[in-house]
Amino acid sequence: MSEPHPHVPHLTTALSGPLQALESLFLDQQTSIETWFRQQWLSTPAPLYASVDLRNAGFKLAPVDTNLFPAGFNNLNPAFLPLCIQALQSAVEHNCPTTVRVLLLPEDHTRNLYYLESLATLQEILIKSGFETRIGSLRDDLIEPWETDLPGGRTIRLEPVRRHGKRLMLADFDPCLILLNNDLSAGRPGILEDLEQPIAPPLEAGWSQRRKTTHFMHYAQVAREFAELIDLDPWLIDPLFRGCGKINFKTREGEECLIENVEQLLSEIRERYRTHGIDREPFVMIKADAGTYGMAVMSARSVDDVAQLNRKQRNKMAASKGGQSVSEVLIQEGVYTFETWGDSAAPAEPVVYMMDHYVVGGFYRVHTERGPNENLNAPGMHFQPLAFEESCITPDRHLEPDASPNRFYAYGVVGRLALVAAARELAALRADKDKAA
Amino acid sequence: MSEPHPHVPHLTTALSGPLQALESLFLDQQTSIETWFRQQWLSTPAPLYASVDLRNAGFKLAPVDTNLFPAGFNNLNPAFLPLCIQALQSAVEHNCPTTVRVLLLPEDHTRNLYYLESLATLQEILIKSGFETRIGSLRDDLIEPWETDLPGGRTIRLEPVRRHGKRLMLADFDPCLILLNNDLSAGRPGILEDLEQPIAPPLEAGWSQRRKTTHFMHYAQVAREFAELIDLDPWLIDPLFRGCGKINFKTREGEECLIENVEQLLSEIRERYRTHGIDREPFVMIKADAGTYGMAVMSARSVDDVAQLNRKQRNKMAASKGGQSVSEVLIQEGVYTFETWGDSAAPAEPVVYMMDHYVVGGFYRVHTERGPNENLNAPGMHFQPLAFEESCITPDRHLEPDASPNRFYAYGVVGRLALVAAARELAALRADKDKAA
Repeated sequence: MSEPHPHVPHLTTALSGPLQALESLFLDQQTSIETWFRQQWLSTPAPLYASVDLRNAGFKLAPVDTNLFPAGFNNLNPAFLPLCIQALQSAVEHNCPTTVRVLLLPEDHTRNLYYLESLATLQEILIKSGFETRIGSLRDDLIEPWETDLPGGRTIRLEPVRRHGKRLMLADFDPCLILLNNDLSAGRPGILEDLEQPIAPPLEAGWSQRRKTTHFMHYAQVAREFAELIDLDPWLIDPLFRGCGKINFKTREGEECLIENVEQLLSEIRERYRTHGIDREPFVMIKADAGTYGMAVMSARSVDDVAQLNRKQRNKMAASKGGQSVSEVLIQEGVYTFETWGDSAAPAEPVVYMMDHYVVGGFYRVHTERGPNENLNAPGMHFQPLAFEESCITPDRHLEPDASPNRFYAYGVVGRLALVAAARELAALRADKDKAA
Repeated sequence: MSEPHPHVPHLTTALSGPLQALESLFLDQQTSIETWFRQQWLSTPAPLYASVDLRNAGFKLAPVDTNLFPAGFNNLNPAFLPLCIQALQSAVEHNCPTTVRVLLLPEDHTRNLYYLESLATLQEILIKSGFETRIGSLRDDLIEPWETDLPGGRTIRLEPVRRHGKRLMLADFDPCLILLNNDLSAGRPGILEDLEQPIAPPLEAGWSQRRKTTHFMHYAQVAREFAELIDLDPWLIDPLFRGCGKINFKTREGEECLIENVEQLLSEIRERYRTHGIDREPFVMIKADAGTYGMAVMSARSVDDVAQLNRKQRNKMAASKGGQSVSEVLIQEGVYTFETWGDSAAPAEPVVYMMDHYVVGGFYRVHTERGPNENLNAPGMHFQPLAFEESCITPDRHLEPDASPNRFYAYGVVGRLALVAAARELAALRADKDKAA
């Protein structure tokens, strides 16, 4: 395996021709694209931060998941830490400009060292940005401050939170801003309701209210508008999808709906493949409509894959993170990943990170034991994170369209399209909330 | 000369003790400092961009010149180009968020290849930021587009500007925003008056209206407020100064005023040196109060240095850039530079660059033929630019106070103090203009 630099992924894309077409178009239209994004942010402010999982099929580059409570900050290129600091300063400025003290509220899984490394990096970014930052915990069983040393050499400290009237505090720390890094898969905790301190991202951004189908409905609209702007077939950046409302994998309730939709979606993809001359077998991904972390995700190339699930597989599908039983599902067009790493041609999936409306970096999930049509973000899946070598914001028209700065720019464009969708999704959730109030 | 990396200055500071004290204080007080800066930007927005020349005497770190139309972008570390792009996007967002096309208006000296390289870098930053960017010229003798190849391999193109009613245009280009990179030493050009397009920085920021004495009056106030915040003697970050209103170097008119003020200032510096136990000879710098580019700058260790100027020296002092005859002068405390480069101990002077209110990088001016008490920005002075190795925004409390990220952070803090002063200075000029209208 030729590896010019230990931190730099060396990627080869089998079907590079058509993707170069996409990258060329983005380069040619860069000013229109950036102007369009600026207009979007003026009308709908970006979430505080986000990460977007992309899949790069060569002929198609599309987001498959948008996380509004990103982890994995430790996987970013340390060279771009200043970019994160600058963008986070801007994000806090837009959310709550008078902030001095930030309380970071993480996920509960305190035994996941990867997550804790990410949390420590996020805290470091906040501190270097000039905010006094401490980490609270929503765990009931945390009654004393808890500290642990991390493999990277840092120490992390979690402290119990307490409520004083309308304020959330630590024993000796009264924060101005609550920064959520917990996706609320287990629901909105009562202790966070009706606080006078601002919470960013807002509680509505949690999985107790978000639905992937809603996100991808917004995304499809964003992709249509964007594609019209630069004269592109929107399918090349947009995964088809369908939703099913009432599925119980254990009791097989609602299975007909699932089978019917899988069949429909596979046939739609087949049709697109025919139109674009793509000689590949269509597949779909079935995911919990509310949830994350790659739990309860399966791929299917035919309705038989769904009908023939065994009990173990059904149990796996029936529960997602936080123990919620899956009832609503997203059936999403499977997008092949044809970016590979090294001689073993391990599939690589780019993940793009954003703070405010700025793309601050990203990394590849590389998995040596998976194929190009499998989910690369699954439990127990020890992917190799490979930080992006360059930033996503330095397109260069003097270089080839698939030179790395231009490929990274393309990731950043599609990542931001998903961010626009998320911004609209949050605005709609906020409007619903205001209407209810 | 040991040189671990061609782009990385290896600096030694003779009097590192006291400066470490300053750096330690900045590190300890980082949250208060950043909170204070955020408040400043909320009440007085930062200029679009600026560079600040600092002098680092070990016991004292102070700005000596604040340039609101910076050149030298080509001297910045290419690794921090993304930081410039992100900050410039933010700057344009704050100045004119609907901008699509930018017209860059440079200085007239088209034979200065260093300046043209800087201009090409600035254009590159604007293009990568997503703005269609072309370069106009205010030169009367430019009637056709003019192109030249630069030593770095790029090509630069300047085009004649024309006025259509209230708009400034190129033959086939109607810009949304005029970005000035001309310091207007020769006065405000009529063609730029009463345009309907926004001009940033505003015309008031040019040397036809700015005065260094006014800037340093604002700076002294900023330094006092900041010093009170972190409990510091403001002199440690503030150069003393005096102004003289009517000097004609050729006719020796007003010489008594100059001599009296030089004497006064030297004695004030001597007093401070005594208080702080500094065993050095005081000196002052005499500069045109309106002007830049290190022309018409001299240093004096005694009144004799001023009284004994010969005719050649007088002629040199009598004219600054653009041919303006010097009448008002700034007499500024000379700040030793005790940062040195290499075995030859060549003095190095840091220059900090900012866009919007973000510090985007900097470089050292290193001059092998100058002493620590001389001006390092003089005509014909072929300094060696050495890009800052690291960003100025990643302070690290786990490292020594004088570790490079922390020294760079200190530069960024003092650079931003000068930026706050410039912001207040521009706000006052704007208020004067509004009053006059």
